[in-house]
Amino acid sequence: MMKSFTPLAFIVFVLLSMAAHPQKPVKYALVIHGGAGNITPANLPAEKAAQYEAKLTEVLRHGDSILRAGGTSLDAVEACVRMMEDSPLFNAGKGAVFTAEGKNELDAAIMDGKTGMAGAVAGVTTIRNPISAARAVMEKSEHVMLSGKGAEAFAAEKGLEIVSPDYFYTPERWASYLKAKANADSISALDKKHGTVGCVAVDSYGNLAAATSTGAMMMKKYGRIGDSPIIGAGTFADNGTCAVSATGHGEFFIRNVIAYDVATLMKYKGLTLAKAANEVVMVKLKTQGGVGGIIAVDRNGNVAMPFNSQGMFRGYIKSGGEMKVAMFGEK
Amino acid sequence: MMKSFTPLAFIVFVLLSMAAHPQKPVKYALVIHGGAGNITPANLPAEKAAQYEAKLTEVLRHGDSILRAGGTSLDAVEACVRMMEDSPLFNAGKGAVFTAEGKNELDAAIMDGKTGMAGAVAGVTTIRNPISAARAVMEKSEHVMLSGKGAEAFAAEKGLEIVSPDYFYTPERWASYLKAKANADSISALDKKHGTVGCVAVDSYGNLAAATSTGAMMMKKYGRIGDSPIIGAGTFADNGTCAVSATGHGEFFIRNVIAYDVATLMKYKGLTLAKAANEVVMVKLKTQGGVGGIIAVDRNGNVAMPFNSQGMFRGYIKSGGEMKVAMFGEK
Repeated sequence: MMKSFTPLAFIVFVLLSMAAHPQKPVKYALVIHGGAGNITPANLPAEKAAQYEAKLTEVLRHGDSILRAGGTSLDAVEACVRMMEDSPLFNAGKGAVFTAEGKNELDAAIMDGKTGMAGAVAGVTTIRNPISAARAVMEKSEHVMLSGKGAEAFAAEKGLEIVSPDYFYTPERWASYLKAKANADSISALDKKHGTVGCVAVDSYGNLAAATSTGAMMMKKYGRIGDSPIIGAGTFADNGTCAVSATGHGEFFIRNVIAYDVATLMKYKGLTLAKAANEVVMVKLKTQGGVGGIIAVDRNGNVAMPFNSQGMFRGYIKSGGEMKVAMFGEK
Repeated sequence: MMKSFTPLAFIVFVLLSMAAHPQKPVKYALVIHGGAGNITPANLPAEKAAQYEAKLTEVLRHGDSILRAGGTSLDAVEACVRMMEDSPLFNAGKGAVFTAEGKNELDAAIMDGKTGMAGAVAGVTTIRNPISAARAVMEKSEHVMLSGKGAEAFAAEKGLEIVSPDYFYTPERWASYLKAKANADSISALDKKHGTVGCVAVDSYGNLAAATSTGAMMMKKYGRIGDSPIIGAGTFADNGTCAVSATGHGEFFIRNVIAYDVATLMKYKGLTLAKAANEVVMVKLKTQGGVGGIIAVDRNGNVAMPFNSQGMFRGYIKSGGEMKVAMFGEK
């Protein structure tokens, strides 16, 4: 047998292998979402759609520049979520929806798939970028989850930018709040979307990270905490499986431990990322009436963005230059 | 073949089957814990140990009486956790440890394995029985998790017993707090135990439930939320797999999504309850230095109570009368 293995045969073998796998392996990939819900061409005027498309593209390009320069997935997901927090287009940071009491209460979480460490803040009202507070909790405290005034005090001690609660105000969200207060039925279709922003990435070192930030549920009461800041529900990352960020009707995502469920379907049942993500969003959640979607990435740069709502602001970019931005459901 | 199947052969077959399975199947089972940590004969004076043993026994007997009378696992786990909340022996409800600011901030969660519904409260200071507030969140709100003053307002609206924050005070915990404030190193070994109470049960209808309540981490700061009120981390129940309540160093339990991990090891990997519980507590958590334990029960009344700390207040009771109460590690 060895005799027949000539150098020529080896060259032919290599050429055949290259033909079977014509693309270079993905070195890094980054996925973002800006909320899921009743996002349809009818509900979203063309001018507004163009604004979302431009911002999602800008965020992806920024994430790409970080990863291309050898930055970590942790830095990239934090930076991308900060950009969406700073944009009034999304229900996170500036532009968050209002609670029943007319306040903005923000939640965020981040997880490092390399170390398994995680950080989260819940119900904060004065931290300009909750995602950076979540990262400070992960890196500069012994804890995973801090809440309310305590979390704000911690963020201030660590030097994060503190703002007046009215920093988060936008006229558009306030108008929606006043309308909702007057008549709960009149909440616009766009406001009904389950707004949350998130980012997941794998970097060129093969490390995964996930980040999620939200202004939570419009008109929420009683200090309600949704799935976004809950590790395993709205946010999860593990180098061995995947990084996940969720957006949707949070209670369903908490009860079903959605983000970790995707990871365990890969880890314990051997499903691919695409199959695991689909199973959780399009079968488990859909059967229960749990509206929303997730973004996910695995170590090989495979990407999944399933949603069972009418639309989801979403997009991804990969090291090879492959990029996609979308909002509505696809045929 | 049919000809040879005589009535006599059938009787012999039945008798042989009974000999192979001499015990009646378990109709119901209930497990409790009262915290894990440095619980050793050296740290726990005999008189104190007797108090714990008596209270754990009383709680088990009460749970047994509910399940024997045809009560649901949900009613049983709530009632048992209430008893431990009302006892100053445990770090939950009355007798909770103090935060760095000298307050008692309580967390609790409950989950119904039949419906998959869940409820939780975090950081409450005026609700006498946080576990009942968690149940009210599950049954009387659209939400899973409420926090702080909002959760207290909700509980008051639903008619739960509201107390002055000093109701939770006990001289013993206050003395520990003052000592800890003066010198963090002097916290007694018993106070260092990761106090939390919990109960899981399967009732005679085959339905599972889990409940957890805690005064959280001694000297905690910044509105820290631990694993107890987080569905999937400290509390989980699903009729298809198991009911779990955890106690230990909460941050490790959150990052590893411990309670749901036990369930998925059964669901996706086909492990038995005992093997799944052991894998999570004695391998995964132990490797990371995550100190603590869990209690778990499955639909067939199998019980697991693994812990990697020196001891754990624990016990179970089954429909056949089998009962066990223990505190220390066993050889």
